[in-house]
Amino acid sequence: MEIAMKNCMSCERSASCILGRLPETELREISKRVKSLYYVRGQVIWQEGVYRPGCFILCQGRALLTVRKSGEAKRRILKFLQTGDLIPCVNASHNGERIYNDFVVQVEAETPALVYYLPASSFRSFVMRHPSVATKVIERLSVVARELLHEIWISSYCDVRARVARVLMELQGAAQFERQPLLRQVIADLVGVNRKVTNKALYNLMEEKIIAIQDHKIEVLDERRLRELQV
Amino acid sequence: MEIAMKNCMSCERSASCILGRLPETELREISKRVKSLYYVRGQVIWQEGVYRPGCFILCQGRALLTVRKSGEAKRRILKFLQTGDLIPCVNASHNGERIYNDFVVQVEAETPALVYYLPASSFRSFVMRHPSVATKVIERLSVVARELLHEIWISSYCDVRARVARVLMELQGAAQFERQPLLRQVIADLVGVNRKVTNKALYNLMEEKIIAIQDHKIEVLDERRLRELQV
Repeated sequence: MEIAMKNCMSCERSASCILGRLPETELREISKRVKSLYYVRGQVIWQEGVYRPGCFILCQGRALLTVRKSGEAKRRILKFLQTGDLIPCVNASHNGERIYNDFVVQVEAETPALVYYLPASSFRSFVMRHPSVATKVIERLSVVARELLHEIWISSYCDVRARVARVLMELQGAAQFERQPLLRQVIADLVGVNRKVTNKALYNLMEEKIIAIQDHKIEVLDERRLRELQV
Repeated sequence: MEIAMKNCMSCERSASCILGRLPETELREISKRVKSLYYVRGQVIWQEGVYRPGCFILCQGRALLTVRKSGEAKRRILKFLQTGDLIPCVNASHNGERIYNDFVVQVEAETPALVYYLPASSFRSFVMRHPSVATKVIERLSVVARELLHEIWISSYCDVRARVARVLMELQGAAQFERQPLLRQVIADLVGVNRKVTNKALYNLMEEKIIAIQDHKIEVLDERRLRELQV
């Protein structure tokens, strides 16, 4: 637990973390209550209706917020979660009921990940004594809600080429670009269409010399035009 | 203010309201801090980046949570808000910055509406003294986030007929059904496609004798099959 606490004290993401900027004594207190959970790449960190309620913070590594239909492999990636991010599945009640039977919201480790978990009862009692943490959680969740609203608009009304351009702009420079075998599927999952449709849009961008694809590697040739195209 | 407070004390939606079940003394206290805002039908209650930060509760009437592209009439309806609902745009900071320049999240009165508004500073100080309210806000926002995730899946991967069936099931029996001239546009805005595509799906359901359309009125003839069709 001392390691966990030390991490918080020296964490470079403390500005964006809900526990960031807490006084040292309070960090020490919370470090006694958090459970450190380690995940390998691909492992499910949280799944609606299955995992216990509480508050999860991604302390190291990256994760994906996804939604899938029960029993289907197809997933939609909604958000890349970074170190310091709150996993937006906070549930302060003891009742971890699933809301939808057919759709599963899930958070998956995209890299090896360390997560701090505050069980619902600890989270509630901590918030009772440190309500400033609660207002941070509220703000973070409001931002997530607005990002999701934005995403719904895009999924409903914007064409696939513009959505692919947006995803490429977002992924550019990100570590995702280095793991090429995954990339096209990741793009498809982020855009919310199948691989065939994604490939067609990528091919189209290639023909216009906005991107180049060689040995399955995607390279952005004309960032200005890609930016113009994006949603 | 006494009227506002009285409403809270006798409100039949207190179970779902973030202020519900507070002791009378606390309700009295909060009633001194809330601002009662009245809206006519169609008026904007909240708009991202324009309205002041804080917490809004819909006390009477119905409202729509929508997203639109700046300068376009086209809107996507994300959620019907009912009496007692938190308007999911809580922002406890003084900084009401807009996150996206091109997309506007907005809450519109669908009927004449009464809203309680707690400005950011009052909301923060109230939460500091009543953290149980904060945990209710957190839970409500988590549920909204999950509903939006679900909606993103549906918008991405489900066909229009299934989505129209779902919307018809949801609207069935609701007051929306009574105001027929609006209905088809509301269905289109809820499904996230244009009216032409919506009409085609409705026509298709009519041909299969699942619904009837007469004098612009939509009637569900076969609820069982409609339920089977829905997402």
